[in-house]
Amino acid sequence: MGFIDENFMLYNETAKKLFHDYAKAEPIYDFHCHLSPQEIYENKNFEDISDVWLGGDHYKWRAMRSMGVPEEEITGKDADKLNKFVKWAETIQYAIGNPLYHWTHLELQRYFGINEPLTKDNAVEIHDKINAMLSKPEFKVRELIKRSNVKAINTTDDPADTLEYHKLIAQEETAFKVYPAWRPDKALNIDAPTFAAYIKQLGDTEGVEITNFAQLKDVLLKRMDLFDSLGCRASDHAFTYVPCRKASEEEVNAALSAALKGECITKEQIELYKTALMLFLGAEYAKRGWAMELHINIKRDNNTRMFEKMGPDTGFDCISDWSTTEGLTNLLDSLDYTNSLPKTIIFAGNPADNQIFGTILGCFQGKEAASKIQFGTAWWFNDNRDGMEAQIKTLGNLGVLGKFIGMLTDSRSFLSYPRHEYFRRILCNIFGEWMEKGEYANDIEFVGKLVKDICYGNAAAYFNL
Amino acid sequence: MGFIDENFMLYNETAKKLFHDYAKAEPIYDFHCHLSPQEIYENKNFEDISDVWLGGDHYKWRAMRSMGVPEEEITGKDADKLNKFVKWAETIQYAIGNPLYHWTHLELQRYFGINEPLTKDNAVEIHDKINAMLSKPEFKVRELIKRSNVKAINTTDDPADTLEYHKLIAQEETAFKVYPAWRPDKALNIDAPTFAAYIKQLGDTEGVEITNFAQLKDVLLKRMDLFDSLGCRASDHAFTYVPCRKASEEEVNAALSAALKGECITKEQIELYKTALMLFLGAEYAKRGWAMELHINIKRDNNTRMFEKMGPDTGFDCISDWSTTEGLTNLLDSLDYTNSLPKTIIFAGNPADNQIFGTILGCFQGKEAASKIQFGTAWWFNDNRDGMEAQIKTLGNLGVLGKFIGMLTDSRSFLSYPRHEYFRRILCNIFGEWMEKGEYANDIEFVGKLVKDICYGNAAAYFNL
Amino acid sequence: MGFIDENFMLYNETAKKLFHDYAKAEPIYDFHCHLSPQEIYENKNFEDISDVWLGGDHYKWRAMRSMGVPEEEITGKDADKLNKFVKWAETIQYAIGNPLYHWTHLELQRYFGINEPLTKDNAVEIHDKINAMLSKPEFKVRELIKRSNVKAINTTDDPADTLEYHKLIAQEETAFKVYPAWRPDKALNIDAPTFAAYIKQLGDTEGVEITNFAQLKDVLLKRMDLFDSLGCRASDHAFTYVPCRKASEEEVNAALSAALKGECITKEQIELYKTALMLFLGAEYAKRGWAMELHINIKRDNNTRMFEKMGPDTGFDCISDWSTTEGLTNLLDSLDYTNSLPKTIIFAGNPADNQIFGTILGCFQGKEAASKIQFGTAWWFNDNRDGMEAQIKTLGNLGVLGKFIGMLTDSRSFLSYPRHEYFRRILCNIFGEWMEKGEYANDIEFVGKLVKDICYGNAAAYFNL
Repeated sequence: MGFIDENFMLYNETAKKLFHDYAKAEPIYDFHCHLSPQEIYENKNFEDISDVWLGGDHYKWRAMRSMGVPEEEITGKDADKLNKFVKWAETIQYAIGNPLYHWTHLELQRYFGINEPLTKDNAVEIHDKINAMLSKPEFKVRELIKRSNVKAINTTDDPADTLEYHKLIAQEETAFKVYPAWRPDKALNIDAPTFAAYIKQLGDTEGVEITNFAQLKDVLLKRMDLFDSLGCRASDHAFTYVPCRKASEEEVNAALSAALKGECITKEQIELYKTALMLFLGAEYAKRGWAMELHINIKRDNNTRMFEKMGPDTGFDCISDWSTTEGLTNLLDSLDYTNSLPKTIIFAGNPADNQIFGTILGCFQGKEAASKIQFGTAWWFNDNRDGMEAQIKTLGNLGVLGKFIGMLTDSRSFLSYPRHEYFRRILCNIFGEWMEKGEYANDIEFVGKLVKDICYGNAAAYFNL
Repeated sequence: MGFIDENFMLYNETAKKLFHDYAKAEPIYDFHCHLSPQEIYENKNFEDISDVWLGGDHYKWRAMRSMGVPEEEITGKDADKLNKFVKWAETIQYAIGNPLYHWTHLELQRYFGINEPLTKDNAVEIHDKINAMLSKPEFKVRELIKRSNVKAINTTDDPADTLEYHKLIAQEETAFKVYPAWRPDKALNIDAPTFAAYIKQLGDTEGVEITNFAQLKDVLLKRMDLFDSLGCRASDHAFTYVPCRKASEEEVNAALSAALKGECITKEQIELYKTALMLFLGAEYAKRGWAMELHINIKRDNNTRMFEKMGPDTGFDCISDWSTTEGLTNLLDSLDYTNSLPKTIIFAGNPADNQIFGTILGCFQGKEAASKIQFGTAWWFNDNRDGMEAQIKTLGNLGVLGKFIGMLTDSRSFLSYPRHEYFRRILCNIFGEWMEKGEYANDIEFVGKLVKDICYGNAAAYFNL
Repeated sequence: MGFIDENFMLYNETAKKLFHDYAKAEPIYDFHCHLSPQEIYENKNFEDISDVWLGGDHYKWRAMRSMGVPEEEITGKDADKLNKFVKWAETIQYAIGNPLYHWTHLELQRYFGINEPLTKDNAVEIHDKINAMLSKPEFKVRELIKRSNVKAINTTDDPADTLEYHKLIAQEETAFKVYPAWRPDKALNIDAPTFAAYIKQLGDTEGVEITNFAQLKDVLLKRMDLFDSLGCRASDHAFTYVPCRKASEEEVNAALSAALKGECITKEQIELYKTALMLFLGAEYAKRGWAMELHINIKRDNNTRMFEKMGPDTGFDCISDWSTTEGLTNLLDSLDYTNSLPKTIIFAGNPADNQIFGTILGCFQGKEAASKIQFGTAWWFNDNRDGMEAQIKTLGNLGVLGKFIGMLTDSRSFLSYPRHEYFRRILCNIFGEWMEKGEYANDIEFVGKLVKDICYGNAAAYFNL
């Protein structure tokens, strides 16, 4: 087999057929990503591939740090861009087995027509070659998205966001839809030092001074209406673990009030506040037909020295092992009991939770959607071939895989759509193998339909696209 | 390879030889299942395949719920049987990668001679074809068991059970033995709302009003004697996690007394009561040569709304992540220290516990039996190809796989014996691959013997069949 | 394929090339083992293969116990050596899938030229054949090490050790280096019943009566200087879980003082003492350029009855499931924040921690070394093909695999160097497959270099050999 060629990751004939005849041409609904609506609106051109690849991608930074590259040369303000690119090329050569190696080459091939392996030796040449292309119109942000056959995008937006670029995009003719997604982490994280300031800012968006839980909910309702009016159909939540500690409105108010005054609050208060807010939000999502995305078991910002220098989302997070079965099942149960459980997608930060989540789904399904409760695709540190295979097979064993809503990029980069292709190849390879071994009916039309559904159709239906 | 044909799951020549020449003809000792002794005694005929397959199988219900089928059409009292079967057929088509897909087709082939894949389109035809067979004598319950080459069965029975059908069966000539197995969960679950009522019922079986721990133990002893007289050789326990909190008889009496009065008891009291009872029971099992089966890390009845409608065992359970190493090792150690550790089989609800359990075994072996402490076969949600391969390889890496007592169905259905075949195929495939790759001596006679042992001989010896 | 032949575990052509042309001839730096410096110094000959294999290897004892062999015949004082060997041969035949099977045959082949599978039937013959060889000079301890192409060894030594044999070895011409490694577990385990006695013994080595934390640190500093002077470059720590509970010097002194008086101390005191000592030690390791090896999540000595008879390290340990993410990340963060984080190697006792540890690395890298924070090779119960593949692929997915420092034996036996070969075969097999499938550039020279680095070069550079 050739180097990352047309049959990359496709190791049986049926897999090749499934990918090339069914999966490849399906459009993309990237229902969770971190693209900037402003950059989409402004339809920006990049000047240097170092900026595109290494300007904000903390996956790549981590690899370079593990290579022993000094931080100054990775994220330093005066870091030389060409040197950075060459160091990246060398890093990737040593990062054998890393999905970054595959993604890098898929991006080189799909966007820049470069098919050779990137090495320290050809790095300068490739760097210059790409930079010569970047200023062309087909490398503007919107063209990149369009060329990737993207039908719609959900960005990630704070409730206090004005959504001004979403409003501007909505007024234009675009080849693809851009929707906001509701990410109220800052409103939930009552233990963050910035909580009180954030709640003030949130209140300001609606001209309200928030001093109690009722007011908070009222402001959030208004913000949800705004999001909804711009096509929002998904919320997104980051949890270390999911708590479920029920409490009276008085207790919630006491916790909120203490936090707003900057007083110390207890672990119990954190949990009861988060629980109360999630019960409120979940019910509202259900009313609006939004899906609730839960991202669980990542411990963030572990390196205090670097956090003080660089802030969050700079590559210092890790998988964690909080026990989450009780809280998560109890929260979903509480919502379900009052008929206010929204469509829910559960993402595992820790792959040791795969089987747990895969079995929680089956406890709370409903007729509102096929696989109303979804096991989210292999996420973050699991977003690689082994992680994807594990997630797909776990869901296969425990649920109804044919109703899976599939892949998303979770990315900050306009070049990361080949990750959908990567996922599709892995999916087709598994299905093809099952068919060829006689473990599933050899009905290419039907399995082709399942593949297409998982690539696009299921997500489109699930999110009422 | 053909669709689920004679070499299903056998992907090397040695595997085929091992399965067809050694494994296939071995009898079955199904040492843990949930069949009804009454139905066996009455030798009942079923009328509708929908009743057989969908009347009580919550694995299948879960899949249908994940498909988005409305609950009324799955478990509703007036659910149309044919519609239910068709919906099931459609569900199974979407459940690619699910063991239900394989089991369903193995059952169609082995019991009904139907070799084509079940689909929504042929569902009505297949439904009618099967129903036409079901009334024949060879589809009576006992014939189904006999045709499956079953030598013996352990059912699952409460200490308060009269065992009347076991007594009746014991008086008959049967092609296979049916033994009761001792499942004292209700006597252990001191925190259950039904505990006091249950203890009353238990005492009544021996005409005793149980008010303290000594009386409870006395009644249980008498019940164990009854079970033993009917051939019981195994106990069975469901644990979320296994506690080991030692306490004085006074403390245990205080906990029991409070629970019997319906008073609130603490987590500590729950744990010390369970510990005391397990230490008593374990020692009694050891005396009788019974094996102690421990099923760990399942969280049951997560959906309160459905629990109120349908009760337990209706498909709303999930894998959980309680930490269990400390309690489990300490409990086994306490029994071992007093030379009262029975043969023990540890089943993992959470496959993340596989390696833990696989290493706990080696700490407590003894000469009473080869692999006295066993790592139970892939259980419940792990009862699929990936789960079985993981369990077999884990035991291979950490123990003496040739002394493994192998498969059981844990099933409520008379049609589920092909799961033994499924397990045997997977086992032979692994062994064959190891031999062909030169990782194990190419001695087909010896490996064939190991295969036969794991299929039947080891379990028969372990349980003194 | 032949039985464990030259292409054992090499299942593609590129793998064969990588192993035979690149990996095989690389020397060994066994940077963590439990060999006896005295036996190395005395260059001892063994008399009986039963003593070599079954005299102290608790892996093998566990297997024999799982086989049901009575303890008297395994570790009994009067156990017949030949019978023990035959029982071992029989056990290994049943231990299909166990790495002991592979290791045993690699040792038979590499050291004794015996290529046939060991069985109960040929056990006596093989036993006698080996014993006839053992007295020859090439079976002296140092020859065994030299024949295995070992360049250097780190043993495992207590801070209170005189290191007398290390001093003696250092004065000789040897074909390989023998360095002490610093294992201060006894100084950390403040909750051990032997703690006070140990601290007394430790103080005695420097003529100091240790009564407070400052004195303890002072004595440890002096001992570290001694270790350093003899070439020590690594510390080693066994943790159930890694705590990080910061406290004042007073609190630490209070805990230490209580423990020295034999008073009861709390869990909090245990944790704060260990934290304080690790923060001190870590900083000292950093100053000296030593690496800090952390072995996590094993629960030891689970069988009290056998512990009372045989003591520690006799085969009664298991994998455990303590949650360790918080403590471990906080400890590393605390050291990093004060620029005193040493090179660190994290070993997972529980493979469910693989992904957690694989992502913690990336949070604390530095330019002092390529992959300054390392994910240690598959350890203890994971030291088998499946465990190694999982570790290698996890590190591949999450880090920079080309900078991995690779294998060590962790062994008590002079015959266990084929475990390096075993690791190398598995590594080459993975790399070869990736290349043949086009998932990595088909550049045999470059991948060959990566292989050589992982076999030896990376460890040599990391430890400044």
